[in-house]
Amino acid sequence: MKLGFVGLGRMGSAMAANLLKAGHEVSVFNRTPGRSAALVALGAREASTLAEICRGDAVISMLADDTAASAVVLADDGLLAHLPVNAIHISMSTISIELSEHLAQAHALAGQRYIAAPVFGRPDMAASAKLFIVTAGDPATIAVCQPLFKAMGQKTVSIGTQPWAANLVKLSGNFLMAAAIEALGEAVALVGKAGIDRSAYIELLTSTVFNLPSYKTYGDLIARSRFEPAAFAAPLGYKDIRLALAAAETLRVPMPVASLLRDRFLRLFAQGGESLDWSAIGGLATKDATDGLNDATPH
Amino acid sequence: MKLGFVGLGRMGSAMAANLLKAGHEVSVFNRTPGRSAALVALGAREASTLAEICRGDAVISMLADDTAASAVVLADDGLLAHLPVNAIHISMSTISIELSEHLAQAHALAGQRYIAAPVFGRPDMAASAKLFIVTAGDPATIAVCQPLFKAMGQKTVSIGTQPWAANLVKLSGNFLMAAAIEALGEAVALVGKAGIDRSAYIELLTSTVFNLPSYKTYGDLIARSRFEPAAFAAPLGYKDIRLALAAAETLRVPMPVASLLRDRFLRLFAQGGESLDWSAIGGLATKDATDGLNDATPH
Amino acid sequence: MKLGFVGLGRMGSAMAANLLKAGHEVSVFNRTPGRSAALVALGAREASTLAEICRGDAVISMLADDTAASAVVLADDGLLAHLPVNAIHISMSTISIELSEHLAQAHALAGQRYIAAPVFGRPDMAASAKLFIVTAGDPATIAVCQPLFKAMGQKTVSIGTQPWAANLVKLSGNFLMAAAIEALGEAVALVGKAGIDRSAYIELLTSTVFNLPSYKTYGDLIARSRFEPAAFAAPLGYKDIRLALAAAETLRVPMPVASLLRDRFLRLFAQGGESLDWSAIGGLATKDATDGLNDATPH
Amino acid sequence: MKLGFVGLGRMGSAMAANLLKAGHEVSVFNRTPGRSAALVALGAREASTLAEICRGDAVISMLADDTAASAVVLADDGLLAHLPVNAIHISMSTISIELSEHLAQAHALAGQRYIAAPVFGRPDMAASAKLFIVTAGDPATIAVCQPLFKAMGQKTVSIGTQPWAANLVKLSGNFLMAAAIEALGEAVALVGKAGIDRSAYIELLTSTVFNLPSYKTYGDLIARSRFEPAAFAAPLGYKDIRLALAAAETLRVPMPVASLLRDRFLRLFAQGGESLDWSAIGGLATKDATDGLNDATPH
Repeated sequence: MKLGFVGLGRMGSAMAANLLKAGHEVSVFNRTPGRSAALVALGAREASTLAEICRGDAVISMLADDTAASAVVLADDGLLAHLPVNAIHISMSTISIELSEHLAQAHALAGQRYIAAPVFGRPDMAASAKLFIVTAGDPATIAVCQPLFKAMGQKTVSIGTQPWAANLVKLSGNFLMAAAIEALGEAVALVGKAGIDRSAYIELLTSTVFNLPSYKTYGDLIARSRFEPAAFAAPLGYKDIRLALAAAETLRVPMPVASLLRDRFLRLFAQGGESLDWSAIGGLATKDATDGLNDATPH
Repeated sequence: MKLGFVGLGRMGSAMAANLLKAGHEVSVFNRTPGRSAALVALGAREASTLAEICRGDAVISMLADDTAASAVVLADDGLLAHLPVNAIHISMSTISIELSEHLAQAHALAGQRYIAAPVFGRPDMAASAKLFIVTAGDPATIAVCQPLFKAMGQKTVSIGTQPWAANLVKLSGNFLMAAAIEALGEAVALVGKAGIDRSAYIELLTSTVFNLPSYKTYGDLIARSRFEPAAFAAPLGYKDIRLALAAAETLRVPMPVASLLRDRFLRLFAQGGESLDWSAIGGLATKDATDGLNDATPH
Repeated sequence: MKLGFVGLGRMGSAMAANLLKAGHEVSVFNRTPGRSAALVALGAREASTLAEICRGDAVISMLADDTAASAVVLADDGLLAHLPVNAIHISMSTISIELSEHLAQAHALAGQRYIAAPVFGRPDMAASAKLFIVTAGDPATIAVCQPLFKAMGQKTVSIGTQPWAANLVKLSGNFLMAAAIEALGEAVALVGKAGIDRSAYIELLTSTVFNLPSYKTYGDLIARSRFEPAAFAAPLGYKDIRLALAAAETLRVPMPVASLLRDRFLRLFAQGGESLDWSAIGGLATKDATDGLNDATPH
Repeated sequence: MKLGFVGLGRMGSAMAANLLKAGHEVSVFNRTPGRSAALVALGAREASTLAEICRGDAVISMLADDTAASAVVLADDGLLAHLPVNAIHISMSTISIELSEHLAQAHALAGQRYIAAPVFGRPDMAASAKLFIVTAGDPATIAVCQPLFKAMGQKTVSIGTQPWAANLVKLSGNFLMAAAIEALGEAVALVGKAGIDRSAYIELLTSTVFNLPSYKTYGDLIARSRFEPAAFAAPLGYKDIRLALAAAETLRVPMPVASLLRDRFLRLFAQGGESLDWSAIGGLATKDATDGLNDATPH
């Protein structure tokens, strides 16, 4: 397919690279320039305006937040203004359900197609085309895009015809992950203070009853108190918890663990942790239990 | 090996059966009689006193709580009084670290050997010899027992030479599981109230980013609000959270999610849920969000 | 003084009446008409536009929320457009610190004076001129307004020269009150389930160690489960907790009790409690402890 | 009356002094000797055994916890063994409801009388006979003791005929106080980080809407981060929250704020705060918001 791709952060660059390797024709654009050299080497065409990436069958956006996603779509020189009738906007960013609904309506009014397809996976999974992709929207449009998803992910599942549903599922999934991080943090604080080797503990659990990549990844980071460099920065994780809580507020759903997570992130930021990986909230239980004197000691 | 086995609940019966199938010679005892017929059919010898199961190389205990485990070991006619010097007590119950330490000392004084070997897994996993077994204690003793563990579980991992460490790991693991149940409950409340099909949601998550048997099992129970019959009864789950919190108190480790779980169980019991599966705490978030009017409707 | 007054809800009407009784000349306006008859009987002049109440020395606004306060000040026909140079806007509404800062800047640009003067007290305290008034802003301007505050309140205290500070103090005070309501609710649930008479308990506490009008008022409502009619409606209380949490987010201050209160209000609203007094969150602990079967029974 | 008094800590010594000043004949005993000099100067008779203080109409006990109270009553040389038939044990300690019930039964079996009369107030209030006393038990017995209560407190209220009820009310009251401390701590963290003077803030609130001695006392300690010396040590406050939670567990009453308080105390102890006043938990919110770098700076 002939594609545009906007958003060349670590996730987006890896995804675009996989599309190129799968033989798609991709024009790339990033609002901050200087990110496309590696993609150009793989055959990408570097665009200097959003209009230039709107000349194919579809445009994929992979942006950091609602502000960036709004700007790329709704600005005067954005996707809405330049996508041809019937062309597809595949929104893979993690954004609010409100914005997703708004984009769906705006594209529909413009005669364009819009599907949401947010992803689960850290940059290494994006690089190895192992993402999990959650889609929602018009089934025929999703079907058209399956070759693209196949190039980027290990599995794609649809959750219905309303695009916002995919965004809500993505937000709820990041909430579940953050909840697991917090719980791992508390468990590691407990066994660690008892004198059990923290890494051996995580190895035991994640080779048996919690044999799941994310538990391995985050458990290991927490056991070793290694929260730098950030593969998924804490402010991004916080953004997702906030969006989940915003949806919960609209729907009137009390979520006490999500509230706790919100407070954990605020504390992390108050104490200088803005640049850490989001799993750093999993270090706070140990800090509470030890005054933080020993929590940075690798085990 | 020539073994004794005490504690023929659903877990213990299945474990004893697997030992018999593996060719071990097993005398069985249960304080409440009438549980051994199926095991006798498999070749077990039914004992009428604890003394009778103490005549082999080792005794395995698989009991409900500290009270039962104390009684079986420490009573006048218990294991401590009857185990020969050098015989092994393999304690597979989920008990407090205090009791585990106490038993370790008592057996040592009596010249007997003691290891802790609590298990992860529900009755179906016990039946299919798929338990995960966490051991701690004298390495040579653990080595002697490996054939037994192999007959009952899919994997056995040791966490050191202090028996209590295995008990703490087990308690922390159940805490992690209960935390996952609570988080799943909140996530299902959120997406369910948004109108997304709850079972499709769980199927999506647990076939992708949360592809783990326990997430599948509990997610499904929560999505369908099916908390009966109980495979692991809520009071047993509560007991484990209490023991984890007791250890946390002794060690001075604040565990806010564990505290929340404690309150969830208390509420469940206040509202008549003593006979439900422990995953029923995962239904409370939906109850909060809907007044409970619709939360029992299968989706 | 010659005054305008906008916002004739239960609080505002009572405050305007006290200004009239103190001899001030008051023009009154309400966006929803039909609220001024009683005030006209006391000598008020009924205005049909905001412009008409801007012809004196000062205008007092007492509005429900940020939306209403914004509209009244910033709309084309609002206070900002019509207040003379040097005239004073006394904002007594409970609004966000962001809006308060915005209004301060806008009035300053227009050469008008602005002070914040939010109040503590329920409608009966407004009626008896027993409000507590928290002011912030230019000291000279506050001094000019003291006779007005004296007519409406029992005590007025200033918290500095930045108007937003008074708004933050007011929000934090409502947070403290809601926290006390939640704690009273938990305590009443505990002693009530133990069989102690709930009203006798509250009478005991509030005639001794918690001898404070708000503890008496809310303790009594909780003991008797009497949350209707609402003197301060739950959505207004929720609004204030949200604004406090919004300020806490901006400032990076984790407030776990405020987070709990947020979830309590969401649950109340999910279960049909939008029309109740905000103290109804104090009934949820009893509901948790009893399945709500008995919690409406007066004691 | 002719009295015995056991427990000469800061509270007990002040209470015994007031009994002496009121003209009562008092024999005093303390398990740790050397505390009675000042009382002897006021006319007390120093006893060297518990038996010696059991020779009058009543014995008052004012002890630190269940362990001490059990020992004093139930030990071989304790009150139960030595009190004459019909003599009264007035238990003024803050103890568990289980122990209170147990003592009630034991004294009844021995033909002795027992009432519970725990107190609210810090040592300065004990010294000035300003305690609030909560009583429960046989009304006639309470009536006999009224002159004693009058000598020690400013007000005495009865909460029924079951002694344990007074103990539960006392525990719930300390819970309410600790909840207020936590809420004040969060509010001070918020306004303090916003740049508002913390002490001015507390002065404002506690001279208006929270005009209550305990809010003044604790608010001021929190505003100034002055948690030493301890008037009521943190481990004693923790003990009371634990006893309240234990009662809540028995009665199946979820108390989320009490759970939060438990975690706050555990954190305080983990970080070296065992010797601080219990209001030090009110400093943790500021620590969360500032990394503790500035929280000890008086304002």
